[in-house]
Amino acid sequence: MLKLNGIFPPLATSFDKGEDLSLDKMKNNIKKLSKYDLAGFLVLGSNGELVNLSDVERQAVYEATREAIPSDKIMIAGTGVQSTRETVNLTKGAAKAGADAALVLNPFYFKGAMSKEALVRHYFTVAENSSIPVLIYNMPANSGMDMNADTILEISAHPNIIGMKDSGGNIVKMGDIRQRVKPEFQILAGSASFLLPALSVGAIGGIVALANFAPKQCIDLYQSFSEGDLTQAREKQLKLISINSAVTEKWGVPALKYAMDYLGYYGGPARKPMLPLKQGIKDELLEIINEYNLKSVVI
Amino acid sequence: MLKLNGIFPPLATSFDKGEDLSLDKMKNNIKKLSKYDLAGFLVLGSNGELVNLSDVERQAVYEATREAIPSDKIMIAGTGVQSTRETVNLTKGAAKAGADAALVLNPFYFKGAMSKEALVRHYFTVAENSSIPVLIYNMPANSGMDMNADTILEISAHPNIIGMKDSGGNIVKMGDIRQRVKPEFQILAGSASFLLPALSVGAIGGIVALANFAPKQCIDLYQSFSEGDLTQAREKQLKLISINSAVTEKWGVPALKYAMDYLGYYGGPARKPMLPLKQGIKDELLEIINEYNLKSVVI
Amino acid sequence: MLKLNGIFPPLATSFDKGEDLSLDKMKNNIKKLSKYDLAGFLVLGSNGELVNLSDVERQAVYEATREAIPSDKIMIAGTGVQSTRETVNLTKGAAKAGADAALVLNPFYFKGAMSKEALVRHYFTVAENSSIPVLIYNMPANSGMDMNADTILEISAHPNIIGMKDSGGNIVKMGDIRQRVKPEFQILAGSASFLLPALSVGAIGGIVALANFAPKQCIDLYQSFSEGDLTQAREKQLKLISINSAVTEKWGVPALKYAMDYLGYYGGPARKPMLPLKQGIKDELLEIINEYNLKSVVI
Amino acid sequence: MLKLNGIFPPLATSFDKGEDLSLDKMKNNIKKLSKYDLAGFLVLGSNGELVNLSDVERQAVYEATREAIPSDKIMIAGTGVQSTRETVNLTKGAAKAGADAALVLNPFYFKGAMSKEALVRHYFTVAENSSIPVLIYNMPANSGMDMNADTILEISAHPNIIGMKDSGGNIVKMGDIRQRVKPEFQILAGSASFLLPALSVGAIGGIVALANFAPKQCIDLYQSFSEGDLTQAREKQLKLISINSAVTEKWGVPALKYAMDYLGYYGGPARKPMLPLKQGIKDELLEIINEYNLKSVVI
Repeated sequence: MLKLNGIFPPLATSFDKGEDLSLDKMKNNIKKLSKYDLAGFLVLGSNGELVNLSDVERQAVYEATREAIPSDKIMIAGTGVQSTRETVNLTKGAAKAGADAALVLNPFYFKGAMSKEALVRHYFTVAENSSIPVLIYNMPANSGMDMNADTILEISAHPNIIGMKDSGGNIVKMGDIRQRVKPEFQILAGSASFLLPALSVGAIGGIVALANFAPKQCIDLYQSFSEGDLTQAREKQLKLISINSAVTEKWGVPALKYAMDYLGYYGGPARKPMLPLKQGIKDELLEIINEYNLKSVVI
Repeated sequence: MLKLNGIFPPLATSFDKGEDLSLDKMKNNIKKLSKYDLAGFLVLGSNGELVNLSDVERQAVYEATREAIPSDKIMIAGTGVQSTRETVNLTKGAAKAGADAALVLNPFYFKGAMSKEALVRHYFTVAENSSIPVLIYNMPANSGMDMNADTILEISAHPNIIGMKDSGGNIVKMGDIRQRVKPEFQILAGSASFLLPALSVGAIGGIVALANFAPKQCIDLYQSFSEGDLTQAREKQLKLISINSAVTEKWGVPALKYAMDYLGYYGGPARKPMLPLKQGIKDELLEIINEYNLKSVVI
Repeated sequence: MLKLNGIFPPLATSFDKGEDLSLDKMKNNIKKLSKYDLAGFLVLGSNGELVNLSDVERQAVYEATREAIPSDKIMIAGTGVQSTRETVNLTKGAAKAGADAALVLNPFYFKGAMSKEALVRHYFTVAENSSIPVLIYNMPANSGMDMNADTILEISAHPNIIGMKDSGGNIVKMGDIRQRVKPEFQILAGSASFLLPALSVGAIGGIVALANFAPKQCIDLYQSFSEGDLTQAREKQLKLISINSAVTEKWGVPALKYAMDYLGYYGGPARKPMLPLKQGIKDELLEIINEYNLKSVVI
Repeated sequence: MLKLNGIFPPLATSFDKGEDLSLDKMKNNIKKLSKYDLAGFLVLGSNGELVNLSDVERQAVYEATREAIPSDKIMIAGTGVQSTRETVNLTKGAAKAGADAALVLNPFYFKGAMSKEALVRHYFTVAENSSIPVLIYNMPANSGMDMNADTILEISAHPNIIGMKDSGGNIVKMGDIRQRVKPEFQILAGSASFLLPALSVGAIGGIVALANFAPKQCIDLYQSFSEGDLTQAREKQLKLISINSAVTEKWGVPALKYAMDYLGYYGGPARKPMLPLKQGIKDELLEIINEYNLKSVVI
């Protein structure tokens, strides 16, 4: 069974100035990040702009990143789209490219039709047609839908569904699932902002945007917790909320990429309609980065 | 300038039992519907399952439906996806296939980044790169985002943006937009359930799911209003709310397709994860259809 | 049976500078407003700050306003609070003071416990203990709860429950209720912003904040509709959305009171925590009032 | 400075079968609960049905409970209502009765008017007019409003505002506030369901409904955390989520009172419109209580 303990960055997808894919830049980021004690990488999650890529581009990214991700690091591929049929196809493509697991966001466009039964059938069909294990992905801020605990529990019963990434931040739901789910089910926090509380109720790691440019800080927090040093863990947790919020719900992917550029990775533009940060926001962001003293800890 | 007055069905996309596209069935539906005094057709809107089709399939649908839609009927093509780049590509494809206008749903996945400025830039870029006029599409139940009046007003300033379909049902917002927008801007109701109230505040027609199988009822309501017969219009409006709600927010595309099958059109399955209706729902739906006496009025 | 056709202002409650009740000012407003062809008055609705008054003050307002409201005008009293017990008490007090009907907002604080059954029992208990007829009041913007059509239909079955004020603005729900409810049930629009669309689906009047200082405009719109002049009605409807929105959802009771002061009625302060308008907002508001040319039409 | 570390039950208010106040029953509950190592009691919070009591009843409850609460236990009184004026009055009454602190829910009825400035002015006015320290109370499930971190930070600047109870469960916001607020500010979890995660980001205790009938379990969890035994704390946390959820968001005050009755305290009825539990729910609830083995641990 694939063990997911630890920290994963949800890799930003690299585009050049004309918004064309830049796979070399992406591989280079992976190379730099691989120096840290990361558990692996998520490719084409929300921060990876899965929704902004054509079918052909998606496959190209799976393949290029697998080449760059060291064999001792886990590669998780985001493969969840609106139809079951296309989600199965993407998952097969990711498996063929060498991904170790697939992260499947729930379909959400036809919200009214997404009954528990529809979602369970969707996930079961994907899991049955996948040669690699599947993770559930709950991301209400983007999907506009929040899968409840009962739905997730029913989905988790499938033997090829081994865990979930929860980006909703509802810590009670996370605890409730942890208490009732099969013991081997692995819960990953979807944001560094609630990494410690999630670990405190039984999560075993996180897929967190911040790890795209501050992997050490995320790993350190995880390790303090693992060693039982709660005072240190709390201090590290509270410190990173501002910077993490800045590159996620506050200013999003463009801010994440700007921070990456500033800290020695390739960020580049997000695809439009996401706009580049305005100068005022850039200044605010740099101030937060510098307060947090990030530059000094880049390897 | 393209005149959009009247009723448009947002065509359901036809799939066979294996969920493969069935363009002949779709063309046949168009042929039958064209006997009614419809203003035209919307292809690949929400009910047309745009989100469930691959890029290649989308272009195939644009082309096949244009062949079937009579030249005196307007063809509107749904072309709005998450990235500006792909929305431009789809719009070009639709224009090439012969569509008369493009209906562009706002991008919504990165909700936090969809500022007024980002949305205006998105729509302006699409409009500037389109040889056919563009309509704004606001559909909060599916997108999880409700564009406000100020945003819509700013978008509407572009000369190649000629109207909007509003499926949100916020009648005050619709009136507010009508009062403040350029006079030639054309507002279409996005649901038969609020067709009359929308007309009462200045809409000039509707793109309404019900017209996929009950076109006469929608046209009749529109005509009663146009003739100033408000008593008749009200009676017709109130009667159709139950059936319309049944095939839209209540049971969605599978119910729409089931009703189409029952009333002599081809419905067939929706793509999964949308599930076929259960028997109990089918029975309820038929009861509503029969109450409304729909079968007797099919041409 | 009490007939509610026409326009009612939901009277603002008058306070002096120290925020003490000023019943004389309130009576004077009633006197001025009674020159217009209003159907009657609502006392202690949301705009009347029912929630900001002590029990003793509430009874004093019922009594003082009844003295001032001419006997040929209907007095509706807002009496809905959180417990059934206190709602019954307030309703009895209002009846004793001479109110013709009670408007009962649904309890909402314990949202999770407000099942259909709980709400039906609540309204039935109030109706059974009231010597005057009862109106349902749905006001989601303030209560944070939106009663659905099925709940309202079940409540409406009680013979002493004769109508509703709906401030939610969901025009489809209003039509759906109209179609399914007992014929004699009377629906009143809760805002001037959707008065015409509400009338178009079967409402018979409105309780609208705007009528506190622009009664003529509301009455004129109502009359144009009643005479079947939809073009005039639409023009009047669209014109008043800006001003109405300014004194309701945008800037609320303090704006309503400021406009009243400006137009010859007594407005005075709202009770805190509602703050007086800032100068910039006052200027914006006056601009909207003047655009709408309100000053010229005061009797 | 008043130290709030530890566990507080938000006391249920006792009514007899006719829904009249039963102060003796309430005092008796306090007597029983005082055998446990509780930090104190909250009187007339949400679970105490503050909104269901008349002004006269509220004062009677403050006075009766203070008589029963041992002098070494802290008494916090819920005093937040819609107007600043009445909130000040209630706070004075509570102080006069001997409360040690006041818990002030934000006004929320006029949501649109509750700007940061309005809320800050409200809390400052209450704090300035109070001889006892004030706690902020954020309770979005009931109020329909969620005060954000910036608002809370600005309110917390007042020297007589010493802490907050947060029942929203947004653990990131809690951490964010903890990191940025004055060091002596005391954060209390508003639900046992997120007690451990709250403690992990710096809360110092909790005001939790569960402590009305399972005080030992809440105290034990708190102590495990305090002793640094995170494994024990997690186990205790995860175990109590089901029962806690059952008596709060799932079935509310009537369930809380039913559990109290079952476990040797006086529960009695909630005031209507809250209905007694149906038999089926009672059975489910007893099953959860028995699973949790609560009966065996009553002192």
